[in-house]
Amino acid sequence: MKVIYVVPGTGMGAQELERRRSILQSNSGKDVKVDIIESSEGPNSIESSYEEYLSIPETVLRVVDAQKKGYQGAILGCFGDPGIDAIREMVQIPVVGPGEASMLIAAMLGHKFSIVTILDNVIPSMEMHAKIIGIDSKLASIRSVNIPVLELAKDLESAKKKIIEESRNAKEHDGADTIILGCMSMAFLGVSNELQKTLGIPVINPAIVSLKILESLVICNLTHSKMAYPSPPKLNS
Amino acid sequence: MKVIYVVPGTGMGAQELERRRSILQSNSGKDVKVDIIESSEGPNSIESSYEEYLSIPETVLRVVDAQKKGYQGAILGCFGDPGIDAIREMVQIPVVGPGEASMLIAAMLGHKFSIVTILDNVIPSMEMHAKIIGIDSKLASIRSVNIPVLELAKDLESAKKKIIEESRNAKEHDGADTIILGCMSMAFLGVSNELQKTLGIPVINPAIVSLKILESLVICNLTHSKMAYPSPPKLNS
Amino acid sequence: MKVIYVVPGTGMGAQELERRRSILQSNSGKDVKVDIIESSEGPNSIESSYEEYLSIPETVLRVVDAQKKGYQGAILGCFGDPGIDAIREMVQIPVVGPGEASMLIAAMLGHKFSIVTILDNVIPSMEMHAKIIGIDSKLASIRSVNIPVLELAKDLESAKKKIIEESRNAKEHDGADTIILGCMSMAFLGVSNELQKTLGIPVINPAIVSLKILESLVICNLTHSKMAYPSPPKLNS
Amino acid sequence: MKVIYVVPGTGMGAQELERRRSILQSNSGKDVKVDIIESSEGPNSIESSYEEYLSIPETVLRVVDAQKKGYQGAILGCFGDPGIDAIREMVQIPVVGPGEASMLIAAMLGHKFSIVTILDNVIPSMEMHAKIIGIDSKLASIRSVNIPVLELAKDLESAKKKIIEESRNAKEHDGADTIILGCMSMAFLGVSNELQKTLGIPVINPAIVSLKILESLVICNLTHSKMAYPSPPKLNS
Amino acid sequence: MKVIYVVPGTGMGAQELERRRSILQSNSGKDVKVDIIESSEGPNSIESSYEEYLSIPETVLRVVDAQKKGYQGAILGCFGDPGIDAIREMVQIPVVGPGEASMLIAAMLGHKFSIVTILDNVIPSMEMHAKIIGIDSKLASIRSVNIPVLELAKDLESAKKKIIEESRNAKEHDGADTIILGCMSMAFLGVSNELQKTLGIPVINPAIVSLKILESLVICNLTHSKMAYPSPPKLNS
Amino acid sequence: MKVIYVVPGTGMGAQELERRRSILQSNSGKDVKVDIIESSEGPNSIESSYEEYLSIPETVLRVVDAQKKGYQGAILGCFGDPGIDAIREMVQIPVVGPGEASMLIAAMLGHKFSIVTILDNVIPSMEMHAKIIGIDSKLASIRSVNIPVLELAKDLESAKKKIIEESRNAKEHDGADTIILGCMSMAFLGVSNELQKTLGIPVINPAIVSLKILESLVICNLTHSKMAYPSPPKLNS
Repeated sequence: MKVIYVVPGTGMGAQELERRRSILQSNSGKDVKVDIIESSEGPNSIESSYEEYLSIPETVLRVVDAQKKGYQGAILGCFGDPGIDAIREMVQIPVVGPGEASMLIAAMLGHKFSIVTILDNVIPSMEMHAKIIGIDSKLASIRSVNIPVLELAKDLESAKKKIIEESRNAKEHDGADTIILGCMSMAFLGVSNELQKTLGIPVINPAIVSLKILESLVICNLTHSKMAYPSPPKLNS
Repeated sequence: MKVIYVVPGTGMGAQELERRRSILQSNSGKDVKVDIIESSEGPNSIESSYEEYLSIPETVLRVVDAQKKGYQGAILGCFGDPGIDAIREMVQIPVVGPGEASMLIAAMLGHKFSIVTILDNVIPSMEMHAKIIGIDSKLASIRSVNIPVLELAKDLESAKKKIIEESRNAKEHDGADTIILGCMSMAFLGVSNELQKTLGIPVINPAIVSLKILESLVICNLTHSKMAYPSPPKLNS
Repeated sequence: MKVIYVVPGTGMGAQELERRRSILQSNSGKDVKVDIIESSEGPNSIESSYEEYLSIPETVLRVVDAQKKGYQGAILGCFGDPGIDAIREMVQIPVVGPGEASMLIAAMLGHKFSIVTILDNVIPSMEMHAKIIGIDSKLASIRSVNIPVLELAKDLESAKKKIIEESRNAKEHDGADTIILGCMSMAFLGVSNELQKTLGIPVINPAIVSLKILESLVICNLTHSKMAYPSPPKLNS
Repeated sequence: MKVIYVVPGTGMGAQELERRRSILQSNSGKDVKVDIIESSEGPNSIESSYEEYLSIPETVLRVVDAQKKGYQGAILGCFGDPGIDAIREMVQIPVVGPGEASMLIAAMLGHKFSIVTILDNVIPSMEMHAKIIGIDSKLASIRSVNIPVLELAKDLESAKKKIIEESRNAKEHDGADTIILGCMSMAFLGVSNELQKTLGIPVINPAIVSLKILESLVICNLTHSKMAYPSPPKLNS
Repeated sequence: MKVIYVVPGTGMGAQELERRRSILQSNSGKDVKVDIIESSEGPNSIESSYEEYLSIPETVLRVVDAQKKGYQGAILGCFGDPGIDAIREMVQIPVVGPGEASMLIAAMLGHKFSIVTILDNVIPSMEMHAKIIGIDSKLASIRSVNIPVLELAKDLESAKKKIIEESRNAKEHDGADTIILGCMSMAFLGVSNELQKTLGIPVINPAIVSLKILESLVICNLTHSKMAYPSPPKLNS
Repeated sequence: MKVIYVVPGTGMGAQELERRRSILQSNSGKDVKVDIIESSEGPNSIESSYEEYLSIPETVLRVVDAQKKGYQGAILGCFGDPGIDAIREMVQIPVVGPGEASMLIAAMLGHKFSIVTILDNVIPSMEMHAKIIGIDSKLASIRSVNIPVLELAKDLESAKKKIIEESRNAKEHDGADTIILGCMSMAFLGVSNELQKTLGIPVINPAIVSLKILESLVICNLTHSKMAYPSPPKLNS
């Protein structure tokens, strides 16, 4: 099986791309080959609806291209799942959105989940996303560590401390029984296992969960419904 | 007051743009000047999520530019309100989405509204939009006439007939007490008054309703909340 | 255009009625004539469901009469919208309820609104009203200043201070991104613009918003659906 | 125990009042005395929101008076429960609304109930009432026999036939597992037991159910919460 | 009328069973005979979903047996209503669940109720139960006194103090206008009337309310719908 | 990895157990060993809530035992997920319920799913289960083929025909864009791929999906939250 992780943005650099790819590869099934690609246009990091939209047109083309090249599934590498509906309109292969996959898996592990994300200003659109997914009745809260994406890895200890603090707040004050790391750069920090041990409740790493869900869909011969995500009529000839 | 109607696409042609502008102008308040502009990039018509996304980046810039030029408000000229959250992040002037404005006014006129739109394939994303707006408990149904946007005006009689037929179906079979025309090209066909008379229930023309709501917001000194639509941090300097 | 603002109560006095009328008139469109009338029966102020009901029978007749006299629309001058369903059953002209109009416009400006009203004891019925309107999923909270209607104007500074305080509480503790003044006597205190500036989020004045929505409906040739508000059969001959 | 059934209207006639009282009395507990009273003002029958409102002011006073006279509880004798919130604001004794009691008991007997009522035009406000009660997620449908209240008893066989027909439609087409007779004049027709036998699913008679719930509340020493239905401040001295 | 209260567990002892029976009997209607029985298998107290399930198979048989013996109705003597759906599948007589009956009666007395129960760990399943009943929109909170069932009666004063404290917290911090005692051993402590007086809001005793609802159903000739609780096909011959 | 599929019933026979195990094994990851076990007590097939409850006590013990034996995860082999909350209370290893896993995966593939199951009488409890899972807003319908579990395999062609027919009805009449086979004996009929091809929309096989989700959870080091499914206090020593 050959799958691809598509970063909807630019400027990550070959080294970080390879670091992320190898983390995914090391969590993949035996016969699974994971590739990674970033977009050729779009923002360096996505911290607003506007930047989500900037990333989408080019990212759709990257997934269309991946399908042509024989990839059997794709992960949209941003927790906000920007443009996942458009991508699904344009391809037949399964496309996993880390936000969607994480929230639905969280619904399987408990009754109330919280998302710990980067900045306050992405919270409103993330709440809207939970509504679209249909699982907002189980969303306890969204909390932010107030660290921009590109700063997260610069001071890992401080980031980890803030993530633990807000996760604990979610557990103790918002009633969350499950935590989701709500940002892909957080997912690749390598903190989720330690966080889970510290808190004593499940912590979902959206990167690994997305990969395993994608592998599951491919093996189950499942992809999104074309009734739900119909091909654009004008482009469908 | 100076407001602008922004068409999120290209290729409409100066004549049709002027025709639409003059319809809006003739429904405007005494001291209101309505301008119209189309985008310099994007699809000829929007009939899918993908085409919505294609239209957004350039359209956001058009509204940012309009704000700089002193326009006091803008109408996003597509019923799906594509990228309205991003536009609101980037400007301070009120931005009216015809879908949002029509659904909320419909909620004032009755208990159950239906939307009659162009093509079946836009129905799923329109249902999601109603959820985001928060008024989906009053949405009776979305029905389509199955005529592409660019065909609507070519055979006006046939289009009108189909619109009446599906509106009547919504009233009789889905319990709709109010109808919304769910496409801006439908809105400018000039059929809503006749349709209202034929059906005996309110028919909302999203173009005119959006203009009047925009004028109302400007006079009331109201615009969207920056808590709900925060400025992107990286662009906010 | 000739519209009327109907106060569902008595004892306001000609001077205050004229003061309110002139505020509305000064916010109206160029060709709009605003009249005001109070009921000939009913309570001096409405601070309970019981007083709402006392006001309704006579108020319905005032609006029926206004329709006969050629008014093209009416505003029901109480934030609780008492008896708006009955009024709509009995007339064809559009009738705007300030509570309903304010909540639906609030839904256009943000994701979570709070209402700041007079007394704690009206909160339960106001919550029920939001459910009926169908927008309760966006209601963050209802808070009261605990000042009776007839006291509001007596100590304007103290009232203003309490309104600011509870609005700030709604913003900071309840997550409200938009505030609605939940009482018509509050609306006519002239504090909403200052409050908006102080808080940095939209503040809806139900009096002005209701007037602009009514003008919009009249110009759009829209009124409530008779399927939703059918004429009483026995009175319909 | 002494309880009272208050008819919120006029013109029923002493004979019919006594007939209804004796039906209630014969279903009451051993030590329960049931009285009946009609209002001194209000419509002959309630078939619209407007007529509901006409009945309320006087009916509230009848219940206030009943409390003074030592009645330990009251039934509001109209399925729409007109003004029950106001009555509860004004008295301490338990007040049962037949609509509310029937819907909540229906929720105990099955998963989906339908209401069979008199006329189509009361359906929208009955749907709103179910929302207020909080049990609308279990409401399958409201259907009407299209017979005015005052005609129901005139042709009993025809009325019964229509009630059976619409109840069966509710069961077969709307998935109702429980039926509520949605009008007090229907309740006193004496058809519910036969209807239950014919349909094979529970049929709730709102008159008898209301009486038994009221007796239960009195014996349990329960009445409505004054936090939910606070006394009007101006009248509270 | 002959009804039975079935304790879904074992080891209560004849004395406590008789004490509970006589409390029920003393609150029953004049011609009502109340019997009590405990199961022959199952846990000593139910403080988890697992223990609920342990109690069910034997308890279903106890109610089936009671129906055969001519009992006209049964109360399932545990607030979590364990297996009430299965019991209703297997019998025709009405079966009252104290949790269900209490929550639906609470919905009649106010707008927001809280449940005060024994241990934190039963809260998640109790929240699920409120969803099934369909009345979760009126559930303000569930709070626990953190005293195991079998300890409750050992230090009555301390238990009472904790119950008052958590009820007051529910009223003051969670907005509850009505309190439900969420455990049958609490119900039989004899504290509800005092608690109601202390708090000034209704306090529902699930034991007494269940008895009165059961008597009401029997007199109204009502039982659960067999469409909602169908007989198991294989056992239905 | 070593996982176990636990059949909550008896009498399936070694041959059928082995057939099912080998289907699971052939869909498992390279290093995954799948075992199967049936309960030593309980019904031959589960077609009612009552039979669900009969199966639970023994099944819980089977999973507790499996954990002791070193299994890293378990699948509860019945689509109704009977007693999954109790099992999760008693073990630390992840336990996948095929109903829950299928519905949450369906929510990832489309906007509206339908379940096609065995008999009409299991529909009400399956609807309740969707509510508990929190995804009922995406449930289009549940339809049955009206064939008892133990008859399904006896006339495979006829079963397949009925499954196709009801799935098509769900798609065409209920708006389902995704189908779930709602019974484990259906899942092992080997019809899902053909059905998916015939219908042109995704068809979820709960057996395979459950296995892949379980493998994913184990690899992600995730299990249910002990805050959501706390250990029973009395058994927790």
